[in-house]
Amino acid sequence: MKIEINDIAKILRDNNDFYILTHKSPDGDTLGSAAALCLALQKMDKSAKILCSDEIPGKYGFLFEHVKNQNFEPGYIISVDVADIQLLGENLSCYADRVDLCIDHHLMNQQFAKVSYVKSGFAATAEIIYEIINALGVNVDADIAGCIYTGISTDTGCFRHLNATSHSYRVAADMIDHGANAFEINKIMFDTKSRAKLSLEKIALESLKFFCGNKGAMITLTNEEIIRFGACSSDFDGLSAIPRQIEGVLIGVFIKEEHPGIFKVSMRTDAAIDASKICANFNGGGHRCAAGCTICGDLVDVKNRIISQIERYLRDAEG
Amino acid sequence: MKIEINDIAKILRDNNDFYILTHKSPDGDTLGSAAALCLALQKMDKSAKILCSDEIPGKYGFLFEHVKNQNFEPGYIISVDVADIQLLGENLSCYADRVDLCIDHHLMNQQFAKVSYVKSGFAATAEIIYEIINALGVNVDADIAGCIYTGISTDTGCFRHLNATSHSYRVAADMIDHGANAFEINKIMFDTKSRAKLSLEKIALESLKFFCGNKGAMITLTNEEIIRFGACSSDFDGLSAIPRQIEGVLIGVFIKEEHPGIFKVSMRTDAAIDASKICANFNGGGHRCAAGCTICGDLVDVKNRIISQIERYLRDAEG
Repeated sequence: MKIEINDIAKILRDNNDFYILTHKSPDGDTLGSAAALCLALQKMDKSAKILCSDEIPGKYGFLFEHVKNQNFEPGYIISVDVADIQLLGENLSCYADRVDLCIDHHLMNQQFAKVSYVKSGFAATAEIIYEIINALGVNVDADIAGCIYTGISTDTGCFRHLNATSHSYRVAADMIDHGANAFEINKIMFDTKSRAKLSLEKIALESLKFFCGNKGAMITLTNEEIIRFGACSSDFDGLSAIPRQIEGVLIGVFIKEEHPGIFKVSMRTDAAIDASKICANFNGGGHRCAAGCTICGDLVDVKNRIISQIERYLRDAEG
Repeated sequence: MKIEINDIAKILRDNNDFYILTHKSPDGDTLGSAAALCLALQKMDKSAKILCSDEIPGKYGFLFEHVKNQNFEPGYIISVDVADIQLLGENLSCYADRVDLCIDHHLMNQQFAKVSYVKSGFAATAEIIYEIINALGVNVDADIAGCIYTGISTDTGCFRHLNATSHSYRVAADMIDHGANAFEINKIMFDTKSRAKLSLEKIALESLKFFCGNKGAMITLTNEEIIRFGACSSDFDGLSAIPRQIEGVLIGVFIKEEHPGIFKVSMRTDAAIDASKICANFNGGGHRCAAGCTICGDLVDVKNRIISQIERYLRDAEG
């Protein structure tokens, strides 16, 4: 049975006491979508609350400013932006086989819920939430608009990623007209750096090394450096993109020593080069232009092994 | 007499042999607007060419890929995105008192042309060009769409600046639907760095210094460093924003030694602090959140003078 938007609206009207589950390591789309939906349901005088397995980073705090804190047992459980039941995380695993409705935009959604509403053509789950709120006939106020804008902007890297469609831009425009403060939101999401992040960037730039006649560039962070600057996971955002951004570089590599002797490798490549093939040599994988793998050893050895696989790939490609 | 969009369309239909003038130190909006208008006029079988006082940076080359190279004497002269006649630059100064039509979005446009069409509510001149092309009834193809998208995206800092309106987003959405490759354009405009730029960033980060109890942060580049890395003007883009982006920093200062002993100071502040007032102490000026000044002396002295003016401002503000 194909579920339409009006079926979703009917389900939400007919039920109450909503638990809205977000994915672990929460981002702007899962949180913005959850907050927008929660605000809309509360406007309909429903009880609704948002749950997340992990602590919510402080920069997302503004999304929840006008969400009412309500305590109740769940009557209907919804997941937003959760592609796979594993992604609910440890603290929400008790709901794993109890999800009534899954709202998501991931092509590979595992259809784990009783009802799934997945639109993979959308850049962000927040775009789907906007459609649902419209179908419910709830007025989009500035708070809801800010939440939806945040979901779209963060999932598209502020409209820079390949996934941003004209639909994303048009929903963002509607949200601005409904009062979303796009400037402030983007400032918080993209133009604010912790001191730890800045220190990591500096150290990473100092480690910059070119190879394969400057077609490749590599930056590294050792475990000792990561610990020294007290870095948290969000401090690494964007670091893996740096080497590939350099003019003329086709293959960018970021090596992070997650634990002593265990190196997480992120590879970003030009469209002409298949990063996932190179990473497959180390039992890794991913997409054509963004892939990764984990290698154990010492740093010099790990670097050399990666560079020689890249050299081999380029030789084969040219040969 | 108020000029309407249809008057502009009539003027363009009634004339021929167009010279389209851009501003000096050209950016994505003046060049994207000029290229879109030139392509549209050439589609109408008019003769049209684009002129710029300065060399056009290589990254904008794609805008002109399908512009036909035509040689002719000017019959009608248009300026795009030029707020002030001085901004035509030295090599176009011969046209200074011959501009027939000025198309611009700057509030402070000096109305130097015979006819001015200024819409200051628009984030980019490219948004006005889109209206004009629609009024002309010319079909917006992928080339024109790419030029208009580039103008909007660059003038809004990829939709991050305060000037981006819902209109900017909607025109951008239309351009994507007409074939603009937003991903590629933004990659070229925002995600590509020269090696010189990267070196400057590294050096600037190494110079980072906090003051006023971490409310202020400052980075510096000496003339020797600038020369050492062979930096060109576009390599400094974005550097002045770095110190203000640091969490908790209200006042960011970037000091660039343009010539030995001559320091250009760029100040970026939180909305609560008036950068233009602080810079006025050094005969500088600008906007509330972005201002600048030039100070002569030696680096240590210049730094100290700026910091003591900031300290004074903060004391007065708190007092």
